[in-house]
Amino acid sequence: MSDRAEMIARAMGKKKAETVFKNGNVINVFSGECIRADVAVCDGMIIGVGNYEGEKEIDVSGKYIAPGFIDSHLHIESSMTTPANFVSRVLAHGTTTLVADPHEVANVSGKEGIEFMLAEAKRLPCNLFVMIPSCVPATPFESSGAVMNAEEIAVFKGRENVAGLGEMMNFVGVTAGDSSVLEKLKVFSGDHDNIDGHAPRLGGNALNAYRLAGITTDHECTTEDEVAQRVRAGMMVLAREGSAAKNLTAIIKAVQKLGFGYERIAFCTDDKHIEEIRSCGHISYNIKRAIELGVPVVDAYKMATINAARHYGFKKLGAVAPGYQADLVILDDAEKVKIHSVWYCGGKVSENCEPAVIEEAEIPSALLNTVNIGELSPEMFKLPVRNQLSPVIKVIPGEIVTEREDVSLPVENGYFKPNKEYQKIAVIDRYRGTGEASIGVVAGLTLSGAIAATVGHDSHNLLVIGDNDEDMLAAVKQLEQLGGGFILVKDGEVLEQLPLPVCGLISDAAPEETEAKLRYMTEIARKMGVPEDIEPFITTSFLALPVIPRLRITNKGIFDVVEQRFLEI
Amino acid sequence: MSDRAEMIARAMGKKKAETVFKNGNVINVFSGECIRADVAVCDGMIIGVGNYEGEKEIDVSGKYIAPGFIDSHLHIESSMTTPANFVSRVLAHGTTTLVADPHEVANVSGKEGIEFMLAEAKRLPCNLFVMIPSCVPATPFESSGAVMNAEEIAVFKGRENVAGLGEMMNFVGVTAGDSSVLEKLKVFSGDHDNIDGHAPRLGGNALNAYRLAGITTDHECTTEDEVAQRVRAGMMVLAREGSAAKNLTAIIKAVQKLGFGYERIAFCTDDKHIEEIRSCGHISYNIKRAIELGVPVVDAYKMATINAARHYGFKKLGAVAPGYQADLVILDDAEKVKIHSVWYCGGKVSENCEPAVIEEAEIPSALLNTVNIGELSPEMFKLPVRNQLSPVIKVIPGEIVTEREDVSLPVENGYFKPNKEYQKIAVIDRYRGTGEASIGVVAGLTLSGAIAATVGHDSHNLLVIGDNDEDMLAAVKQLEQLGGGFILVKDGEVLEQLPLPVCGLISDAAPEETEAKLRYMTEIARKMGVPEDIEPFITTSFLALPVIPRLRITNKGIFDVVEQRFLEI
Repeated sequence: MSDRAEMIARAMGKKKAETVFKNGNVINVFSGECIRADVAVCDGMIIGVGNYEGEKEIDVSGKYIAPGFIDSHLHIESSMTTPANFVSRVLAHGTTTLVADPHEVANVSGKEGIEFMLAEAKRLPCNLFVMIPSCVPATPFESSGAVMNAEEIAVFKGRENVAGLGEMMNFVGVTAGDSSVLEKLKVFSGDHDNIDGHAPRLGGNALNAYRLAGITTDHECTTEDEVAQRVRAGMMVLAREGSAAKNLTAIIKAVQKLGFGYERIAFCTDDKHIEEIRSCGHISYNIKRAIELGVPVVDAYKMATINAARHYGFKKLGAVAPGYQADLVILDDAEKVKIHSVWYCGGKVSENCEPAVIEEAEIPSALLNTVNIGELSPEMFKLPVRNQLSPVIKVIPGEIVTEREDVSLPVENGYFKPNKEYQKIAVIDRYRGTGEASIGVVAGLTLSGAIAATVGHDSHNLLVIGDNDEDMLAAVKQLEQLGGGFILVKDGEVLEQLPLPVCGLISDAAPEETEAKLRYMTEIARKMGVPEDIEPFITTSFLALPVIPRLRITNKGIFDVVEQRFLEI
Repeated sequence: MSDRAEMIARAMGKKKAETVFKNGNVINVFSGECIRADVAVCDGMIIGVGNYEGEKEIDVSGKYIAPGFIDSHLHIESSMTTPANFVSRVLAHGTTTLVADPHEVANVSGKEGIEFMLAEAKRLPCNLFVMIPSCVPATPFESSGAVMNAEEIAVFKGRENVAGLGEMMNFVGVTAGDSSVLEKLKVFSGDHDNIDGHAPRLGGNALNAYRLAGITTDHECTTEDEVAQRVRAGMMVLAREGSAAKNLTAIIKAVQKLGFGYERIAFCTDDKHIEEIRSCGHISYNIKRAIELGVPVVDAYKMATINAARHYGFKKLGAVAPGYQADLVILDDAEKVKIHSVWYCGGKVSENCEPAVIEEAEIPSALLNTVNIGELSPEMFKLPVRNQLSPVIKVIPGEIVTEREDVSLPVENGYFKPNKEYQKIAVIDRYRGTGEASIGVVAGLTLSGAIAATVGHDSHNLLVIGDNDEDMLAAVKQLEQLGGGFILVKDGEVLEQLPLPVCGLISDAAPEETEAKLRYMTEIARKMGVPEDIEPFITTSFLALPVIPRLRITNKGIFDVVEQRFLEI
């Protein structure tokens, strides 16, 4: 540890720096230049860019030096791996700062889930900022593992690594002036707070109201009009390129067409799978793609670094300049974003895109054994049909939106009888042991047997689909015993299972194992009848999300998102 | 007062806004556009930009709506008028936010001076942010009315309207790692603090060290190289256009040549006289001049608004967008910066560049009667000449730098005897009643009689120049009685005087009166012999400043700035 005076003496060149990256091409996010220089580091900080000698010198001739990349909005849980594993993988691709909203674990484990993330934030070799989830649960049409109101959120305000309030998805509540929503926003209304948004298609005066309420970002833009309106209203547009939603190209093209410049754009992934991170990169991919689209090289790096840092008030992040943290990405090629090595606080964490070596944390017991179904019986899946025409959830290949079909269902003794066309779908409260469940009908999966999961956005209740009650029951029972995960059952036999013991969302195995298992289970699901153009586990994980049209099922019933009401079979 | 829900309802257009500026051309600092729209205001905030109806509607068809301007670095005291008068005058020219460093009053009255500014900041109809003076006194070669070390500075940290630490002029101390300097910087090293710089000609590794120490602005740039180095090092360049120092043109041309864009530039005045503000404008002039130099119109307004707001962390200032404070400048012409009216928090404060009507504050007694000389006698001005050649301060027409002449002085009975070429100059400690004084010789003023002042940067001791001890004594005595100001005495008679009762720096009269008086006194000074090309009161106010070459006089002696040592006559 150097004291301030010694740091300054080293910056002056009166004394050697600890580490000097010699003779690199420094990407300067302030001047927009790329400048040949040495970067001197001491005590985890950049102390100077210029001509320096170091106790340790690293020759980076011909290479580029960029600031560590910032993912300005993401949910780590979507990767189904632990924060340690996730950070290990994204560091390999140059991301040293994460603005993470742990709303998945919060929906399952409430404040214990957030505390786990905050504990990891302190420990992990990256800048992990936590946005406190604003919407737990996401809607009143479902029960989640926790309900977090303004009072419970306020506990986290001002805590180390807390950067503000997470994406306010309830834009309807905001613009209606719902008092419980406004109370949450008020908690984070200080001059140094941030509130993230999520407001697809919101515009005009409603967008003004949403921004007035203190919300300053949106990562849900997909159209030129959305980009234009948000930038004009003073919001940052977070250009998202994740596994499901890929909006970067549209946003960059919109900005180019609008002629706004890139000052108000930052990069995010929202949800990105480990496999895709490994094959395509993380924020590094956003940079590369932006450059391919004609963005000037340094502007592309600015969107990945200083633009986000400045927005969120991370004063020591996002630049290679004196007084900034020594989070550095050394690149063989700046245009193609070919990464040579990644450094966090002046220490090397990855080379050749190899995962960083990070020890796993012990998972707090509150995040384990989160599946509590209660008494089970085959009767629970019986579905009486009372109407002539009953609403059916129709799965659409390659989409997460669903359709509503009103059909005359096959019936036996007054109860729905599944066939090749229609199967049962049930969502069971998995938190309180109430056995509270709702049963519906799904079409498009042509499933024979049962598939069950505890990953079901955003409340993550237990969802099971099947063509017979016995397999469905077996799947639920076994999943409860596992503590959550994905499972496939046929003829009373467990064909394969993926345990996700942490909140029923996250594996404690290496992410590569998890991915391999999921690929294998997808193949088995195909044999069970799921068509080639439907991803069985992604599809199931969205069937309970009552904010995406059209028909959904939650633990409280079958819900028509357009009509905003529950329906009867 | 509207509550949040009502504000949102009004933003939604469900209810009329309080005030709507109808059909203006809104200067959008985020998109870089100028957009035809209504601006809706409620409770001092902008609630929406779009289509709105208001309880009160103001037609601004054909006019432009800009955010209120920000002066990112200034000293109000330099105007010799009270904060109330000063704010009244700058509001008329569109400046609604001031980042003021009260280091003049702090040098005289220490924390009482700062408290006065903070009290005014709360009261005045503008956003007055105070940077706590970092250099009181400016150098160890003089005594000022107060000494403020880190501990005394720390008292102000976190106080309302305090935005950080004022210009760190002691760049030598910073780069040398001087512990008392580093302690002051440490007080304001938090993530939400700002530290302003002042580092003419500093460059290379020394600039790195200066930036590393936490200093993030510089308003002393005059050359392309200085601009380039500061921007690259991550500092904001504050383009200054004041009464004495006019650097805007050079800086804008440098940025254009460098191709950096204007993101890292903000505007300031540093020191600007009321007369010049009235005739040329304030920050409005910086905008106009920048546009004349070819800066795109909206970029010019950005430098005057959002760039500064973003740098200092004023999250609700600097833009016309929902969630921003309704500080608005309505313009008849955006390119020529022709101001129609100025609005602070939604209320009109000026029209047709008329001064805003603001009540004066009662001046705290600690800021009055600050001139305390002690026992006076004609003997105090006797100057024994011991050397063959004695150093003389040579005043240069049109400059504040001086020259050193080593001459054989006219002597009578071993004492210096003034003549037309050489007069006496004395600096007397005006704070402690010690009678501590130093006497030297000045050339170039050809003064007959005596001129005295309590404005003497930065310590503001009492400075008197004369060709005879009697007039000098009379001037000092009378100035003490006045409580400070400027005075002209000849043949024992007070020819004219300008009382500056507040800290001996500031008049309590209308600034127009002060200016008229100063112009009149300048004419009298001409009749007393001061050449046409020397401004008598500006010149005297800098003769005691031991940081500008070459020869100066402080209350501690005659000081050679280049040799950094005191000299004997």
